[in-house]
Parts: sequence; C-alpha cells; structure tokens
Amino acid sequence: MIVVMKENATMAELGQVLKALEDKGFQPRPNHGAQRTVIGIMEAGEGDLLELANMAGVEQISPLSSKFKMVSKDFKSDPTVVSVADFKIGGSEFVVMAGPCGVESTEQLLSTARQVKACGGRILRGGAYKPRTSPYSFQGLREEGLKILAQARNETGLPVITEIISPELVPLVARYSDILQIGSRNMQNYALLEAVGKERKPVMLKRGLMSTIEEMLLAAEYLMSGGNTQVMLCERGIRTFEKATRNTLDLSAVSVIKSMSHLPVIVDPSHAVGHVDYVADMCRASVASGADGIIIETHPNPAEALSDGPQSLTFSAFDELMISLRPVAQAMGRNMVERPEK
Amino acid sequence: MIVVMKENATMAELGQVLKALEDKGFQPRPNHGAQRTVIGIMEAGEGDLLELANMAGVEQISPLSSKFKMVSKDFKSDPTVVSVADFKIGGSEFVVMAGPCGVESTEQLLSTARQVKACGGRILRGGAYKPRTSPYSFQGLREEGLKILAQARNETGLPVITEIISPELVPLVARYSDILQIGSRNMQNYALLEAVGKERKPVMLKRGLMSTIEEMLLAAEYLMSGGNTQVMLCERGIRTFEKATRNTLDLSAVSVIKSMSHLPVIVDPSHAVGHVDYVADMCRASVASGADGIIIETHPNPAEALSDGPQSLTFSAFDELMISLRPVAQAMGRNMVERPEK
Amino acid sequence: MIVVMKENATMAELGQVLKALEDKGFQPRPNHGAQRTVIGIMEAGEGDLLELANMAGVEQISPLSSKFKMVSKDFKSDPTVVSVADFKIGGSEFVVMAGPCGVESTEQLLSTARQVKACGGRILRGGAYKPRTSPYSFQGLREEGLKILAQARNETGLPVITEIISPELVPLVARYSDILQIGSRNMQNYALLEAVGKERKPVMLKRGLMSTIEEMLLAAEYLMSGGNTQVMLCERGIRTFEKATRNTLDLSAVSVIKSMSHLPVIVDPSHAVGHVDYVADMCRASVASGADGIIIETHPNPAEALSDGPQSLTFSAFDELMISLRPVAQAMGRNMVERPEK
Amino acid sequence: MIVVMKENATMAELGQVLKALEDKGFQPRPNHGAQRTVIGIMEAGEGDLLELANMAGVEQISPLSSKFKMVSKDFKSDPTVVSVADFKIGGSEFVVMAGPCGVESTEQLLSTARQVKACGGRILRGGAYKPRTSPYSFQGLREEGLKILAQARNETGLPVITEIISPELVPLVARYSDILQIGSRNMQNYALLEAVGKERKPVMLKRGLMSTIEEMLLAAEYLMSGGNTQVMLCERGIRTFEKATRNTLDLSAVSVIKSMSHLPVIVDPSHAVGHVDYVADMCRASVASGADGIIIETHPNPAEALSDGPQSLTFSAFDELMISLRPVAQAMGRNMVERPEK
Repeated sequence: MIVVMKENATMAELGQVLKALEDKGFQPRPNHGAQRTVIGIMEAGEGDLLELANMAGVEQISPLSSKFKMVSKDFKSDPTVVSVADFKIGGSEFVVMAGPCGVESTEQLLSTARQVKACGGRILRGGAYKPRTSPYSFQGLREEGLKILAQARNETGLPVITEIISPELVPLVARYSDILQIGSRNMQNYALLEAVGKERKPVMLKRGLMSTIEEMLLAAEYLMSGGNTQVMLCERGIRTFEKATRNTLDLSAVSVIKSMSHLPVIVDPSHAVGHVDYVADMCRASVASGADGIIIETHPNPAEALSDGPQSLTFSAFDELMISLRPVAQAMGRNMVERPEK
Repeated sequence: MIVVMKENATMAELGQVLKALEDKGFQPRPNHGAQRTVIGIMEAGEGDLLELANMAGVEQISPLSSKFKMVSKDFKSDPTVVSVADFKIGGSEFVVMAGPCGVESTEQLLSTARQVKACGGRILRGGAYKPRTSPYSFQGLREEGLKILAQARNETGLPVITEIISPELVPLVARYSDILQIGSRNMQNYALLEAVGKERKPVMLKRGLMSTIEEMLLAAEYLMSGGNTQVMLCERGIRTFEKATRNTLDLSAVSVIKSMSHLPVIVDPSHAVGHVDYVADMCRASVASGADGIIIETHPNPAEALSDGPQSLTFSAFDELMISLRPVAQAMGRNMVERPEK
Repeated sequence: MIVVMKENATMAELGQVLKALEDKGFQPRPNHGAQRTVIGIMEAGEGDLLELANMAGVEQISPLSSKFKMVSKDFKSDPTVVSVADFKIGGSEFVVMAGPCGVESTEQLLSTARQVKACGGRILRGGAYKPRTSPYSFQGLREEGLKILAQARNETGLPVITEIISPELVPLVARYSDILQIGSRNMQNYALLEAVGKERKPVMLKRGLMSTIEEMLLAAEYLMSGGNTQVMLCERGIRTFEKATRNTLDLSAVSVIKSMSHLPVIVDPSHAVGHVDYVADMCRASVASGADGIIIETHPNPAEALSDGPQSLTFSAFDELMISLRPVAQAMGRNMVERPEK
Repeated sequence: MIVVMKENATMAELGQVLKALEDKGFQPRPNHGAQRTVIGIMEAGEGDLLELANMAGVEQISPLSSKFKMVSKDFKSDPTVVSVADFKIGGSEFVVMAGPCGVESTEQLLSTARQVKACGGRILRGGAYKPRTSPYSFQGLREEGLKILAQARNETGLPVITEIISPELVPLVARYSDILQIGSRNMQNYALLEAVGKERKPVMLKRGLMSTIEEMLLAAEYLMSGGNTQVMLCERGIRTFEKATRNTLDLSAVSVIKSMSHLPVIVDPSHAVGHVDYVADMCRASVASGADGIIIETHPNPAEALSDGPQSLTFSAFDELMISLRPVAQAMGRNMVERPEK
C-alpha cells in the first residue's frame, strides 16, 4: 500500500502519519519527491489502513498494483539519481565506466586508470573476484585485486566499481569499492541480494543473461526492500540463438525499464557483443537509446588479457570511441565530463 | 572465384577476360568499384581459371572464401547504394520509410502519405497483401491496395514499398511498387527469392524472426546470384524469451552486417518492440547504431487499425519523432531531407 | 460457429440443416464423429444462426471460442486417422517413416527402401526438392528425384513422402507422392498452404524451427479451412541457445498438441538433434511421449551423404533402433507392423 | 593430466605412484574403475609428469583434453552410482522422487510422504528454503521445514531431498537432508558450489533455465573438484520462446550428458512443462530417453498449494502415473521398486 501525502502537507502531519503506521506495527518508507511525499508500506493489505484516510495531510491511500513496489514509478515518479564521488548517475550527465575485465597487476590497472581518466571516463571498473564457468580458469586476484583498485583510485581520483560474488564478502568489498556490482550469474542469488540490500552504498545490478526485465526489476526490489535505494540496473545482453555475437544486446530493455521504473540504466555493450568490432557502434546506440551510462572494457594489451580479451578495446580505440560519443550525447541533451588537460 | 583486375587495366583487357570466361562456359559478373573491378564467377572451382592468371590486366585470381559470395565485402568493398526516385539509400542520407501496417482505405492511406511527406519521410510503406498467422484474419486489400498505393505516390511524389508474398505475384506488385519487400516469414521462401532475384527493382529483405544473420546474408545471396543487385537488408527483431517486447530488436546485427557485407541496412523498430512507447527510443538508437534508415508504422487512428495498432505512432507522435531524429543523424554525420514548407 | 446435432438426429434432419445454412450463403462443413455430428460454419458470427436453434435434430449452436477452429478438439473430438496405402496413422499403430534426407541416385534410394521395408518401416522418405540455406548447395534432383521415389514405391510397396517447396509444384509432386510434406521453412508460406489445402492428399506439416505450437495449429487451420482434412503435424526441434544439439527437440509439444487438437503427431528426432549419437534415445522417447509415429534419416553411407550425413543412421543402426522401439511401443499400448520375412 | 595404471598393476605400485605425485606437490585423485585405475592430477601440466612414465604399473600418462575433467567419461568410464539409504541411483533401478514444491505444514508433508511411499516412490522432495522471484512471495518454512522433512523420513523411511540456497546454510541442511539440491537459479553460484563440494553427501545439481549442457557439466566439475563425487545432474527445462509450456523440456540433454559424462541424470518434468496436463506424458518420455530417474510434484490439494499448484499432480493422478511408468521402465530394461502392500 502507499499513502500519498498532500502537496501542502506539513512535516508535522507527516510525522503523525508515520507514527500511526508504526503504532500499527508497520515499517513505513517515506519517499520525498519533487511534488509530494509518498509513504510505502510493503506489508500492509487493502483493509489495514482505512482509518488513516481522514488524517490531516493525507490525500489518498491506494494499493501498489504492480508486481514491483519500490522500484516502480507508481511509488516514486522522480528519476533516482545516484551520487558517486562528486558527480551523479541518472541525471543530465552521460557517464562512462571503463577498465579491464579483471585486475591482473598493479601496472596493468594503473595504466588503464590513467587512460580512462585522460579520455573522460568517470569510473574505473575491474574484477577482483571473477565468477568463471570452469573451476580451472583464472578466478581473480581477490583481496590483492581490491587493494590495487584502491591504489588506482588514490592516484587518479576515479571511483571504482567491482563485483561481489558471495554474501560473506560484502563487508570486505564494500570497504574498497565505491560501487558494488552484482553480476549476471548472481542476479537471482537472493542471499547475496539480501546482504547487499543491507549496505548503504551504490549498487549496480546486472541482468542475468537468461532473465526477463520483470525478473531484473524484482531482483532490484530485493535490494530496495532491504533498504538500499542507490540502485542502478545494467543491460548486458541476453542469450539467444544468434551466434554472430556472444549475446544479444537488448537495447529496448532501456526503454522498457525507463517506462516502468525510476532507476538509472547502464548498458554493457562489451559483454553483450563479445567482439571489439561491434562495441563502438553499440556504445553510440546505447546513448541514443536513453541510457544513463555505459560500462566497457579496455586493456593495455587485449591480446594478452587473462579474460575477455576479444571484447576489450585498445587504448587508442577507447580514445576514439570517447570522442565519437560526445556529439551523440549532446544530440540527446546529455552532457559528458570535459577531458582533462593532459 | 573472383578475378581481380589491375587498377590501370583497360576496358579492352576487361573485355578479353570476360570473353575468355564466357568461352569456358562461365557466367562472369563484373563489379566496378571505385578503385578496381572484380569479376565474380560463382560456379568456378580453384583449378578452373589457372590459365587466366597471365592475361593482360589481371592482378590476381582467388577463391571467395566465405560462405557469402556476392553479398560479402571481399567481392565488393564499396558500400552498395540503392537509388530510389531522386535520392539514394546507403549513402550519406538517413532515410525514413513510414506508413500504416496495412492499406485499409484510400482516405487512410492518403492522409498518412501527406503526413509522412510533411514530416520529412522519404518512402511510403503499406501492406496490400498481408501474411497473417490465422486464415481468419484480415488478409489485405490485395490488388485494390496496390492501386491505392500508386494513387498516394502520384499525389505526394513519395515512392512506395510493399510486400510480395508469392512468386506469381511478382510481376503485378513490381508494376505498382518502387521497392519490393520480402517479409520475415518468407525470408527463406526460396521460390520467392528466385523470382524476385530476376527482377531489376530495389528489394528490401527482412530478417526472419527465427533467422541468424548468416542465414539472412545467404538469403540475400539468392537475390544477388539471381542478378538483382539492389538489395537492402532489414533488421526487425528476433524471437527470444523476453516478453516485455513483441520481439527483441537486435541492433548489433547492424554492426555485424556492416562488417561483413556492402549492403545497406534498414531497421524496423515498430515490429520489433511491438509497443508505441518504445518505438521512438529505438528509432534514435537505430540511427546511432550506424543503420542507413528506418521503417516505421504510423496510422491516422491507431486504435482502429486493422493490424498492428499497438505499435503504430499517431501523426503527432510521428512528427515529434522526426524532429528528434535529425540531431542524432547529424551527430552521426548523416543528413536527412529537409521538411517541405507546409 | 458450430451446430451440434443430436445423437439421434436423422440424416434427413442433417440434410435440412445443411440446406438452411447454404440458403443463408454459408459453406457448412459437417464432421461426423463417433458420437454425434458437428457442423462448422467458419464465416458465421454469433447472431447469424439464431433461427436454426429450433430446427429438428439440432442440439446446440455455439461459437468456436478458441483461435483454432477446424483443428481444435471442440470442433472434432475424435482423433483424426489418416489412411495411407493399407494402414492408418493416428490409430493404434506406431508408424515409422524413414529414408535419406535427399534422393541422390536410384541405387541409393532403392537400397535404402529395401532396408526400411525389411526392418518394419512403413513409409519411405526422401527429398527431391531441397530448400537450402545457400544458393550454392545441392538443391535436389527435382523431378528426376520424384521418379526415383515412384520406382522405389513400385518395387517395395512402401508409400512415399516428399517435400513441396512452391505452390506451382503442387500438382507435379502430388502425382508422385503419397504424402505431401510442408517443410519447416515453409510452415508460414501461406500461398503454399492454400495450394496444398486444395489437394485431397495426406499432408504432413512440419513445425517452423522458431514457431510456436499455436502458430503451427493456425498453419494447419489454413490447410483444413481449404478443405484438406488429412493433416498430420510434425515436431522437429526448435531453435534455442543450446549448441550441443542442432535444435532442441520439444517433445512436450506432442502432449500440448494432443490436448488441443485431434490431429496426429509425428516426431522427427533426426533434424532436431542433428547427431546420430542422440537419435535412437529420442526415437524411444518419442514413442513414450504419445506420438503417433516418427520420421528418421537413414542412408547407405552417411559419410558420403550430400546432406544431413551427421544425423543419418547406418543401415545396421537403423535395424537396431527398430528392434528397440517395439517393446516401448507395446508398453504404450501401440502396435507396430511385423517385420517381413527376409 | 591423468595417469592410467596397468590392468595388473599392484596396490603397492599404485602407492608408489601416489607418493611420487604427492612429493611433487600435487593432489592425486585415484579413481578405481572396473577395468583399471586412473589417477587424475588436475593441477599438472603436460611436462610435469614425464619422469613417472617409467614407474612400475604405469601404462600411460596423458592430458585430459576436454574442458571437463572429473565429470568426463575419459576420466571415469564406469557410470557413477549414487547410494541413498538402501538403494542406488544410476544403476538398473529407475528411481522416482516426489513430493510438494514447498513444505507447508506437517500434515501436508506427512500425507504426501505416505502417498509417495504407497505408490512406489523412493525419495521425498520438499522445499524448506524457497528462492522466489519476488521478495514478497512465500519464502519457505526454513529450519521448521527441515524438521518436518526429517519427521516424514522417520515415519515413512523415505530419504529426503531439499534445496540449499546459500553457502552458510550447508551444514544445517546437510544435517537434515539425505540429498542436497542445488537449484536452477544457483547453478552458477560458485560460492555455493564450493561449499557443497566440500560435503560428502549426495548432491543433485539442477540445470540453469538458460544454461548450456556444457555449463552444467562445468558446474558439476566445481563440485567434483571440491571432492564430492556423489553428483547427480537434473534436466528441468530451458527457457525458449514457446509459451504453451512454462519452459521447454530438453530431453535430448539426457542423451548428450550420457555420451559425455559418467554421472546419473534425473529429469524434472513438473517444472519444465508447468502444467499438470503434460506431466505424465513427459515422465514416460523421460524413462524412454534413458534417464535414471524423475523428480515430480504432488500435493494433497494442488489448488491450494502455496507454490507451483498448476503443475502438481493430485494423489490419484500420481498413482495412475506410477502404474503407467512401470511397463515403460521394463521395456527399457530398468526395474522399479515394488509397491508396498497397503
């Protein structure tokens, strides 16, 4: 259920309503929009709140009809804007996250971080814990990788994003990373979603490569109902019969999510297409689709990358891409950060 | 096999080589690129052309290694540009084709044609023969529909595109339509491909909703090996598990096709997403993906359309879309035709 | 609409009702079940038949609510049994159709036909017209192939099934073949469906490799509404992300079709799995799924087959398979024809 | 790498080879087949074991070429047989596991357990921890559910299988359950796979609903390389475009797995088809496909089940199914346990 407060309701009236809800044993979740405040009460049924209808400041009490509660536009009509360092994701800026698939060494990561920074990237990506299909593949540098990420942030000032693969790793990774990433294979790992939902750090939830948009929104609901409201969604390609690309990038998902939810949407063309030849086209298409940002892979020497080499851009290809993105972003009414003087 | 002629080969040398090939019983297909001429001989094997290697003007004789022959970039490195009326598809212009799913009446089509023209659309679409999943659904106005299309062209000057569903209809439809469309369900209807391959009219081949990019290129090979070189390909969404959209628009197909083939690529977001809310986002993304044009559905009264109402734009939504496309096209270095003074 | 006649209605009463329907301009389609006769009137709406309700012999007039009319169990509750030569498909016998993918030579086909016959196969399959993805692949022996099929029938007594790929070939193929096959790529080739619908020969409609069961039933509706009631459906695998098999055999389709329709169902495991190692397991599973028969590929020398060699059984593997099918058929309450004395 | 011992190698020779491997810092994994013993050394490379080639009893040293190591037939040619209570899975018996989707109450589970036992079922299934797409759906009775399962085992003697959804729950669930189940959503939850790999209890790994067979085998490799060799695989349907069934049961996966791996295969038709009308057909087809068992849902009152009601068999439908399975199992050369005297 949601309680919609009047536009001119006072803070005192809001306080009365919240207290009344708590007295009834509920956990009210107020959400202050630009126009009005809405209070979500996930555990209440239609008959539970009848007597609140006459309280001062209350405009309307209504059920949240969709399967999605806190992620839906009904609950929160203003777009969610996630703050990271000194900028925002989900606002007017188009944000580029870039870096290698996996953190392999200090030198590899630092050189990449410098290039990302120099070309106008905003966030450094790099995997410290790698979920791999085979138990015999490179599994990441683990805590050592986290330390290298922190070192790169210190040097360049770029905030970092890295993946969490297990609930017990949440405190450790949260200590080092500015954004927590939940990977495709773990989109429906509910124990992990619950653990990350208890954090108060930005989180990027990647779509499972076998998951519907509805399932992704419900996974985000786990995060938000746990109390973590700084949630971003990431479209990264779905599994289809087409073999020319690694997966099929579902760009219409950006449009669908934007019509249903207030959460920012990031696109990961690198993992979707799986081949460097198609990455730049899909980055530009992502901007034009209405996405709030992209996350892409670049590596000082893709041919020797320990993972995802075929889809990683060289530094010069990354530079060219960044230059080509800017006019498309402008055409879409989005700004991008200026490239720093080298 | 292909015979690559020297850059400075003379027309007389070319003539000698063509004659030598014909004398051996082959059907040579010369292709005059900006740099040099390449002769394709589809039916020849590796050993068949050895003695031509020493003829004047011949630079090299080599096999066409890919599965694709005439559609591949190896055979023709310059992009194919298809001329329609007084403009070109596949060049620097970004082309919009628009109109109703099916031709329903003179009034419906004429009013749509006027709006398409007024907003800067280039080509009028409209189905006269409708392949329908159920035998009890509206099957189109057939020849009557073709006549209405011709009437709309006469009035507005817009060339028209319409679908052919059976080999024996080719002469009739070719008499009325400027571009022949082969629909998704018929992408692998080889009898139809052979019939249209014998025409010398532009043809747009739509991807089967179950077809790989490779299969689409091989279907185009049927058209080209039949002698029709004015071929455009159309990405229109593929069937996946995702249910939020009617099909999944595979925009990376644009990038993949462009890396393999010289043929122009058109995107049909309307059929792919199946819902008007997502069409405009995907039109803009199509421009940024590198496509040469789009084909979309607009209808004077979508709620009463006999087919595909939910995905048809109203006239005002179409107008807004057209205005929003122009800056994205410019950002991509493409021009669009000026809107006529109303 | 359907008019359900009373169990004890007389032929005279039926005649009166049929005449009344024709007088109203309808084309009534009577269907004589074991219990009662039902008359289908596809073109009538709910209000059109009100005055017939009181005619003698009429029990009930009701709409055919499902999308499927003539293919549905509502229209015809008794299973359809298709007669071929001196046996039946869709009754208590489990029927095996076998032969090479393509007819390559008289010797190849005759030796295969003899083996099929000797092992208890009922029908000889073999493609004369081959729809091929590439225009440069073997396209079949065409009319010469049809003649070889007829020769094999004459020698062995086995009826034959072969594919039709274009409307204009229907009369020619119908002259030679006992069963007309509509292939996967042509399941929604409506011009072909209409042409075959006018024939009065058994037809086997194969499921498109990315067609839903609903679409297959609607394609069968094209055949039946054209007047051809001897229709069999064939599950042959659908396209999915799984790469270990050529396609994914959807055996639950047998169960789904049987719950919705009265038509017999044949399974084609060879094309579905695409590899000889998995064919026999899936043949046995097909029997147990409730299918009425299977169609499989066998070839005197699979390694040299011009098409589909990897999925074609050797003669000895075919023999072993046939022996192993019999107990499973018996367990399912189905009989198979005795193996002739060699 | 694998070291293949001679057929007549002695235990002492084996001991020497194992010691030599340990001295080199490896962790040798001997596997005693019916014919000979093979030692797997997962972490060794081609050059590491050269000097062992001349040791007494050693026949051959060779790389494990496939991506799969311990799950492959190259490593272990004899089928793996998993012992549960007093019977075996993967041998000549066809085993039926049955019960409700979720444990809802003592009464519900006990009545179901009695029916499963009475009809010849071998193992009781029931979910205590339910991974649910929405955070607002029934999540299971958790530890209370485990206790009810233990109670049902005590009364009926049926061993139980239940799902583990998080690494930290492994010790608790392992205390109550005879077989640990890893569910579809967690097939690639590597933290969970590693935790279960350290247990020495039978485990059933369900295929992710969009995972390839190769990925499932690699997930099983995580379990086996962790030391848990009592692994069963479960095909439970994959996600496709077909909407008539909840998922598409990929029965050919049984055949594919059996050709690559020594592990037993169980089929779950209930979750695959999602509707009770199609369950029995697919159970019989599963037997004929070569599977070692099935796992199905039955509930005292499917209409009131808290989860998966539409696919749960009533007690009488379950009884009928069990009667119909027996002749098919016999036709396949498999036995089923006798039904106890009621």
